[in-house]
Amino acid sequence: MTTESSEGVYPATERTTPTRHSDRARYDVQAISAVLDEAITCHVGYVDDGEPIVVPTIHTRVDDQLYLHTSSGSRLAKLAGAEGGTPVCVTVTLLDGLVLARSQFNHSMNYRSVVVRGTGTAVTDGQEKLDALAAVVEHIAQGRGRHSRPPTGKELAATALVRVPIAEASLKSRNGPPNDDEGDHELPYWAGVITVRTSYGPAFPAPDLPYDVPVPQQLANYTRRTR
Amino acid sequence: MTTESSEGVYPATERTTPTRHSDRARYDVQAISAVLDEAITCHVGYVDDGEPIVVPTIHTRVDDQLYLHTSSGSRLAKLAGAEGGTPVCVTVTLLDGLVLARSQFNHSMNYRSVVVRGTGTAVTDGQEKLDALAAVVEHIAQGRGRHSRPPTGKELAATALVRVPIAEASLKSRNGPPNDDEGDHELPYWAGVITVRTSYGPAFPAPDLPYDVPVPQQLANYTRRTR
Repeated sequence: MTTESSEGVYPATERTTPTRHSDRARYDVQAISAVLDEAITCHVGYVDDGEPIVVPTIHTRVDDQLYLHTSSGSRLAKLAGAEGGTPVCVTVTLLDGLVLARSQFNHSMNYRSVVVRGTGTAVTDGQEKLDALAAVVEHIAQGRGRHSRPPTGKELAATALVRVPIAEASLKSRNGPPNDDEGDHELPYWAGVITVRTSYGPAFPAPDLPYDVPVPQQLANYTRRTR
Repeated sequence: MTTESSEGVYPATERTTPTRHSDRARYDVQAISAVLDEAITCHVGYVDDGEPIVVPTIHTRVDDQLYLHTSSGSRLAKLAGAEGGTPVCVTVTLLDGLVLARSQFNHSMNYRSVVVRGTGTAVTDGQEKLDALAAVVEHIAQGRGRHSRPPTGKELAATALVRVPIAEASLKSRNGPPNDDEGDHELPYWAGVITVRTSYGPAFPAPDLPYDVPVPQQLANYTRRTR
């Protein structure tokens, strides 16, 4: 654990202070970890030849390290594998509601979004790579690490894991009803929030699965829980 | 409409051809538009001072133009407002399922993800800005444009819309059961897909809404439909 995270708060740097609605920003480790853990996928940004690239990928958090799952042949893996790694911005967004105000201007979203900025480096240590891959599988479905076959050497070679220290991170969120201006309250429009929820299941067995393999309880009742 | 989109296919450029699973890539306008329209938010990447930034934002598609909604004070608005605009990468991802294979290596996601690369420029024409903002509101909830108050001059000045021509775009997707290796079929693990769905509703009225304003039918039965 870094000094910052043991104090429970990441430092608010110029880069992690939003230009707008900075009152919506938070830096506490627990809240940031909860969002990183609940979201299955992230969007990772990197710069290639001066141009921005954003790709969706599966991530996992292990204490204050973030691991991004990619393939050895990917551009991200190549850039992260170069000496010194590559700057990345990892953004995770959970959408909680559509905020419909009387005015178009005050329309908004209820959401929780974490931005992690740092340097992505390729994981080269064999054990760390195995552990990170197991953590990725565990991130997809709790308990799955023990109920699946670990990678062969060849599979491991085809897989790349990019490590990003969670040292510069912020959470921006909005919650609650629309904020309509006083003068707009008379307008004859409905205003409120439409809840957005991500639901999981049912679990469909693979066509090639023998008839007598039951759906594990945890997969049948799949939910995203924060650790 | 550009020549490309009237032919129904975006050109596969080096930049939009994935390094991995290129068989999962598609370039047809209709399929790409459907994903852009179904997703409420996108992740936009840009380069600031040589570093990648990824922010979630609301987008909308108007024919072959993508509009990103931001505030005038945002870094993105400033970069896009500079002469010549700024390179952006807009990525939209819809998660459809968790693919659990017998092997950790073959774990995957069912998803549809569109990547649009291009130059983002700030919308300066007043009418285009009004139209784009109305389209953003319409993108959040169909019919809402007519049932909300258009922006005042001051509100419009505080809002920025960034235009990105949809000319270089690709859709990558995966669907279906896990692809386990022949040799893994004997393993005693459950394999299959856990469906992931985004659900909308209920609609909660704002606390300051008069008692007699009914929830419009379209909001009570809110769904995301592709246009």
